[in-house]
Amino acid sequence: MLKSTMTQIKSQTLKGFRDFLPKEMALRNYVKNTLIEIFETYGFQPLETPALEYSSVLKGKYGNETDDKLGYFFKDNGDREIGLRYDLTVPVAKVLAIYNNEIQLPFKRYQIQPVWRAENTQKGRYREFIQCDIDIFGTNSPIADAEIISIIYIGTQKLNFKNAIIKINSRSILFDILSKSGIKNKQKSVLQSIDKLDKIGEDGVKKELISKDLSDTQINDIFKYIKLAQPDENLKAVLNYLKSLNIPDSAYIFDPTLVRGCDYYTGTIFEVSVDEANGSIGGGGRYDNLIETLGGPKIPAVGFAFGFERIVDVIQKLNLLPEINDSKIKILVANFGPETETNILNLVSKLRSQNISSIIYPDTDKLGKQIKYADNLGISYLAIIGTDEAKNNQIMLKNLKTTEQKLVSFEELIKILKK
Amino acid sequence: MLKSTMTQIKSQTLKGFRDFLPKEMALRNYVKNTLIEIFETYGFQPLETPALEYSSVLKGKYGNETDDKLGYFFKDNGDREIGLRYDLTVPVAKVLAIYNNEIQLPFKRYQIQPVWRAENTQKGRYREFIQCDIDIFGTNSPIADAEIISIIYIGTQKLNFKNAIIKINSRSILFDILSKSGIKNKQKSVLQSIDKLDKIGEDGVKKELISKDLSDTQINDIFKYIKLAQPDENLKAVLNYLKSLNIPDSAYIFDPTLVRGCDYYTGTIFEVSVDEANGSIGGGGRYDNLIETLGGPKIPAVGFAFGFERIVDVIQKLNLLPEINDSKIKILVANFGPETETNILNLVSKLRSQNISSIIYPDTDKLGKQIKYADNLGISYLAIIGTDEAKNNQIMLKNLKTTEQKLVSFEELIKILKK
Repeated sequence: MLKSTMTQIKSQTLKGFRDFLPKEMALRNYVKNTLIEIFETYGFQPLETPALEYSSVLKGKYGNETDDKLGYFFKDNGDREIGLRYDLTVPVAKVLAIYNNEIQLPFKRYQIQPVWRAENTQKGRYREFIQCDIDIFGTNSPIADAEIISIIYIGTQKLNFKNAIIKINSRSILFDILSKSGIKNKQKSVLQSIDKLDKIGEDGVKKELISKDLSDTQINDIFKYIKLAQPDENLKAVLNYLKSLNIPDSAYIFDPTLVRGCDYYTGTIFEVSVDEANGSIGGGGRYDNLIETLGGPKIPAVGFAFGFERIVDVIQKLNLLPEINDSKIKILVANFGPETETNILNLVSKLRSQNISSIIYPDTDKLGKQIKYADNLGISYLAIIGTDEAKNNQIMLKNLKTTEQKLVSFEELIKILKK
Repeated sequence: MLKSTMTQIKSQTLKGFRDFLPKEMALRNYVKNTLIEIFETYGFQPLETPALEYSSVLKGKYGNETDDKLGYFFKDNGDREIGLRYDLTVPVAKVLAIYNNEIQLPFKRYQIQPVWRAENTQKGRYREFIQCDIDIFGTNSPIADAEIISIIYIGTQKLNFKNAIIKINSRSILFDILSKSGIKNKQKSVLQSIDKLDKIGEDGVKKELISKDLSDTQINDIFKYIKLAQPDENLKAVLNYLKSLNIPDSAYIFDPTLVRGCDYYTGTIFEVSVDEANGSIGGGGRYDNLIETLGGPKIPAVGFAFGFERIVDVIQKLNLLPEINDSKIKILVANFGPETETNILNLVSKLRSQNISSIIYPDTDKLGKQIKYADNLGISYLAIIGTDEAKNNQIMLKNLKTTEQKLVSFEELIKILKK
């Protein structure tokens, strides 16, 4: 029998976790489906991996203990050390290692799944969030880099972001600047400072570099060589391929100060910013050594991660997609009880067989309540079949937005609803 | 820097967990999208809840300690007792409790998410699997019961299951049979035996009931009243509504021996079997007290769970959907190097802008290798642009299934690929 522990139960969602009600789901599904459609048009194929993995598969992969602490790790009933998926790159490295006989290279995969990190929620971060990765494994052709960049452009277009700009750079150009400026040690630390140019400006970066014991000459050289920097041979090829892929010049820019946080990148790097987001909505690049380091085969790779949660937040805040507030349900069929029940059930069944999303109000509440129900759901039309309409095989159709109403036949109804 | 722990890393997926490669994903996405389309046509709305919840939200809800042991429970870094989602009913009860001001009743929601259970994998069970629930909350109208049953019918049709049969019964009919047979105690235990009729036959059930200390008269009465059983008033209404919803008589059957395992059902119960699955692919019913018991508001409910993993397994085993083996990618554009690179990139970009899924081979490997790559991916067409074709603005199109090839213009190519 069921326990009656009802009064003791606290109904509460964990901090950093979210329940998604239908309106939020509609927006999230819109973003997800828009991206999936693009990925599949580009010939990327779906992959999914388990939420739980052996800790040994997940831990220590990025050589960063902080990352391990942010993971959810525990022992299962069989005393195995396990943990929740932390990103989508470690799992794909595992897949490439295990299924190397089944997976043909080059392998173009997309993966859209939640990941879990015990982040500080006070910074407005979520502990469960969707990651959305596309990668091409097993080719070092700059065509692959260009394909990834062109997807970013198409993505921003389909999501209606105006003035999106893709910054493109290459790790080799950054290291060339450092080398010409006579910086051999602390390269990583110097790049971290350069990465802050957008936020703290040239003066800020210079101050940081002084504090890192760089000489004035070195610092001046860095900025001189940044200004002189030009795409190298490989990056030139990528940029040319973008032209051949019909990506407009205005969509991207060579930016020799773009660093990208993660140090596993080996070649081209890129990041997309949109005015609406006041910042980046995704980034990526070429990482030819990472898959092997993560336990996978020795294969080159290039990829991009769309900032799914950020994209959803921006679209919601700026109301970039007003029609998302309209219900997918086209019509509510009102219920006046036994006399016309057969008629309304019949109507709703015929509407659905025409793929028109429709609902019947299951109870015989007052019409006002039924209309309010439809309004709250954002439904535009109400169908009424009283005894008169039933006799004459007609439907009283009310447009809930304009309050207009008129008698229509079933065929006329279909025409209106399919508009 | 990245650690070089590569050699120590065992790349292994946990027992009971699965990686889904593109071919498996194609089938899973097909089933998922087919069901979602039906649910949305019926006006069900999507809901998602977090993977992790407070243990107090999850535990002890079904009054069954075994269930709690099957859950994945642990402490997070903040020493909170938490656990992984175990089913989709407990989370929706939580949602109905927390968001009772935002959610309007009747609430029709669908939820398709993985759940985690530490099942015995030797029985061929998964520890991570998709559940797919539809429920109508907040109405006790038998119209809601009929709507759920009609979705089951449409679902089996759209999934191409032949000879699906929906068994329908009501808890009140079962209890009426027991009561007429003079059985007041052990009702639950007796129902468990009746539930086995399909598997162990009438003789088997009789033997079990004897071992449960029922008298011969009681046992004979049970079978007598089973044979005499007729739908009661409420179930008659449900069956009539099914007719009004244009569900053919052949799709369902009144079965007074249908019990359904869970004891929280309070009214109509149903289960769908298909010949192809050699058993049930889903079940459900009305449960008017459960949501309150689970910590939600006091509201009636009726719902159904599609056996997602079972449906996928059956379709795969019986090859019910042969075309799933064809790639979504329509065409591979072969790569012969620098001379025609611009042409092929241009072609692929134009194909994609027409929503034709297409890929370019990123490297200049031998044509044989490129064709093999396309074959392995199940791609039907190969586009070749050599220097001659480039000059004449033509494409050599090869049908990889028939090996036919011919020169076509871009417009002709589009026509062929859109067929």
